[in-house]
Amino acid sequence: MVDTKNLDPKFNPFKPRPKKETQIKKMIAVVSGKGGVGKSTVSALLATHAQRAGYQTGIIDGDIIGPSMGHLFNIHQPLFGDDAGIQPGVTETGIKLVTSNMLVPNETTPILWRGALITNAVKDFYTEVIWEELDLMVLDMPPGTGDIALTVFQNLPITGIIIVTSPQDLVSMIVSKAVEMANKMNVPIIGIIENFSYFVCDDCDKVHYPFGSSKGKMLSEKYNIPLLGQLPINPLINELADQGRIEEVESEDFTWLIETIMEA
Amino acid sequence: MVDTKNLDPKFNPFKPRPKKETQIKKMIAVVSGKGGVGKSTVSALLATHAQRAGYQTGIIDGDIIGPSMGHLFNIHQPLFGDDAGIQPGVTETGIKLVTSNMLVPNETTPILWRGALITNAVKDFYTEVIWEELDLMVLDMPPGTGDIALTVFQNLPITGIIIVTSPQDLVSMIVSKAVEMANKMNVPIIGIIENFSYFVCDDCDKVHYPFGSSKGKMLSEKYNIPLLGQLPINPLINELADQGRIEEVESEDFTWLIETIMEA
Repeated sequence: MVDTKNLDPKFNPFKPRPKKETQIKKMIAVVSGKGGVGKSTVSALLATHAQRAGYQTGIIDGDIIGPSMGHLFNIHQPLFGDDAGIQPGVTETGIKLVTSNMLVPNETTPILWRGALITNAVKDFYTEVIWEELDLMVLDMPPGTGDIALTVFQNLPITGIIIVTSPQDLVSMIVSKAVEMANKMNVPIIGIIENFSYFVCDDCDKVHYPFGSSKGKMLSEKYNIPLLGQLPINPLINELADQGRIEEVESEDFTWLIETIMEA
Repeated sequence: MVDTKNLDPKFNPFKPRPKKETQIKKMIAVVSGKGGVGKSTVSALLATHAQRAGYQTGIIDGDIIGPSMGHLFNIHQPLFGDDAGIQPGVTETGIKLVTSNMLVPNETTPILWRGALITNAVKDFYTEVIWEELDLMVLDMPPGTGDIALTVFQNLPITGIIIVTSPQDLVSMIVSKAVEMANKMNVPIIGIIENFSYFVCDDCDKVHYPFGSSKGKMLSEKYNIPLLGQLPINPLINELADQGRIEEVESEDFTWLIETIMEA
């Protein structure tokens, strides 16, 4: 039979410590209940706009089994390290980045790590990498409320979390689970970003809601969490993301988001 | 340091056995590299159209931490079982269904199971449920190439797998990992379904490619796998899915898909 008893999520005898050179002012975890809401793209655009605004920014790609940051930023070199620690990758505009794709010889090799190894990888990205001084660390969490999410919430000094959602109701149901988990873990929620909210036909300007009407406002009121933004489906962003040129995107939505987050 | 050594994926001393009443003719695993490509909706529509075509169909919702089948089919009762086994839920049209939401008291409660428990849950859904005779079992796999995918490929008698993808290139990169994993595990691939391929403006009939141009054909040729279909973003299907009325969808695409799959 299936055992429904939850393990105690707050048990943590060994709090992990980063390298002595590492000083991170703010660490934001970007979460979603389910995959496919564009969470990684949102994380990358938050980092891009923070770096552009003059904040030294880092990214931990917490999606160990489905990493995408290397592709978004067109960084494919393996990680280099010695006894002193691991050097992160550095993007075109100077963002420091670590992703699991940098650990496998061929990027299409599936990463078949078992749970404990996956969990340790995220912790190791925090403790073993020489991040030096960062104004902002964007932690792109894996989708869901599984092991890695739990471990991150237990172990890393998260300043706050941002929940990325989409108008699909199924996603909203699962986001409500993420909110409940964050509350249980006592991690503050900065706000909700609704992605894929609408789509504008560039021929006739009709505004479409391909994934259903917006649920961001409802979710925001239900859980008393700020709705930070509602973003359209933007083929141009998707194309630049595809081509590893995410740093070329300039979006007023994200400029505003970064102001809000850094002042929070 | 991060240990990149993979565990042997083929080691399996104890092959799980189903209940003696259970006889499953075909078991199709629906997989994707990443979440959010509409995999669960595609699984539900495959099951719906198979059942409508006269095949007794079952569904295992393998997405233990992000289940959606209960919502899609508007089934919310808890599972009932005794020493003889567990009775599956039954949908409006007679599809037999098991999902992890049926195991928690409140459906918004997050399921914080650790890896081994998650893995066992999928096996238990196969071995402990009294499925009786099924022409088709649709196994909605969790996204990614993680523990559950591995265990299912190792343990359950999968007839073949269907890969659901979307035009986002990031997804395609990850699908290639799923293909590689399936090959390693020696599970035949029935084909690829590309979801969210295009969107038609209902005002001016312009065809849009909101997530970029189709990659299904390229993937199909690259891996020599049939491209079974390219499905549009359909607000009507999303709305019925939202309302738990997925069984009301009638789609020629899926009628054709089921013919292809059942004859394969």
